[in-house]
Amino acid sequence: MITHTEYVTMHTKKRYEILDITDEVERVRATSGLRDGFILVTAMHITASIFVNDREPGLYKDVVRWLEQLAPAKPDYEHHQTGEDNADAHLKRMLLGHQVIVPVTEGKLDFGPWERVHYGEFDGRRPKRVLFKAMGV
Amino acid sequence: MITHTEYVTMHTKKRYEILDITDEVERVRATSGLRDGFILVTAMHITASIFVNDREPGLYKDVVRWLEQLAPAKPDYEHHQTGEDNADAHLKRMLLGHQVIVPVTEGKLDFGPWERVHYGEFDGRRPKRVLFKAMGV
Amino acid sequence: MITHTEYVTMHTKKRYEILDITDEVERVRATSGLRDGFILVTAMHITASIFVNDREPGLYKDVVRWLEQLAPAKPDYEHHQTGEDNADAHLKRMLLGHQVIVPVTEGKLDFGPWERVHYGEFDGRRPKRVLFKAMGV
Repeated sequence: MITHTEYVTMHTKKRYEILDITDEVERVRATSGLRDGFILVTAMHITASIFVNDREPGLYKDVVRWLEQLAPAKPDYEHHQTGEDNADAHLKRMLLGHQVIVPVTEGKLDFGPWERVHYGEFDGRRPKRVLFKAMGV
Repeated sequence: MITHTEYVTMHTKKRYEILDITDEVERVRATSGLRDGFILVTAMHITASIFVNDREPGLYKDVVRWLEQLAPAKPDYEHHQTGEDNADAHLKRMLLGHQVIVPVTEGKLDFGPWERVHYGEFDGRRPKRVLFKAMGV
Repeated sequence: MITHTEYVTMHTKKRYEILDITDEVERVRATSGLRDGFILVTAMHITASIFVNDREPGLYKDVVRWLEQLAPAKPDYEHHQTGEDNADAHLKRMLLGHQVIVPVTEGKLDFGPWERVHYGEFDGRRPKRVLFKAMGV
């Protein structure tokens, strides 16, 4: 049985950013030698998401605009009384979810034709870590 | 240790549809012989969801209406510049999530009294696959 | 290989409540002896959530207020024709998600600095169960 863990540090330049990290998942799979099982991909910081969707820049813009409508950046959150200014980023991260399980079958990421793993950053411009944990055979 | 993978193709007749697929999960469990572990159920297409909730047709209507309010079908998405018309379906899928883990204990799906696994289709009328992967003992 | 399952019953006093259950996750980990693997934490009732975010009471208030805006308690849900009055709680639970996987590495919950596991109750004042299942080595 295989267990294998890696941490990758994300460096974003903007407050909001969506990055395709599928190649990192495959790199971790290859390093682990996993042939069948799960790879957990999880954001270790609470203002970032991991989600699976299409790699399409227009859709990225739609997602960011939509998140801004549903969970807007604004001053009047209770969380800001702690000195923070990123309550919206906590909410955005919860809307998209903070982790996914990537299935691995016969040594490959077992994805449909358009599935790609993305990192969604909602309070960027600082280093943040993503954990990858492979488990299986 | 057991790993077992199956793919089931969904055939929907409407653009939006919610289907209880719990019996498929149990069928996969029985075929795999899993007594204790996890079954990942994941939508392989990026305009469909997997979620756990009550099997109640009134609630299904509420869910569809609510998703339409939060992520409406409308022309002016950036994603539509690619020729697509289903940006709302990508967003709806992200709201409900695209995968669940079903725990299995003593050879049974380990669910509370009302938990049922559902497939949520938001861009239907075409064949789409769901992946089931059992892992455990 | 280890598999270990526990059920914890939550007793809430209010309709909406957010509780940090990270210490329960660690207790389950210690009991299981898990050194490397996953702990699934999943709400067995369909009007409650499990999510990972900051332990900060101001943020809890923001989350509850925000959920109320996106999925308001109101009479006119179809689900209420069954005699229920909690359709909003089903929707709130789906927004935040009903389960998380906690990675365990070298005998510890493998979390970033602010990650804490929370139970979100949206139809409280009745006993409800949470399932913890550890799997790994």
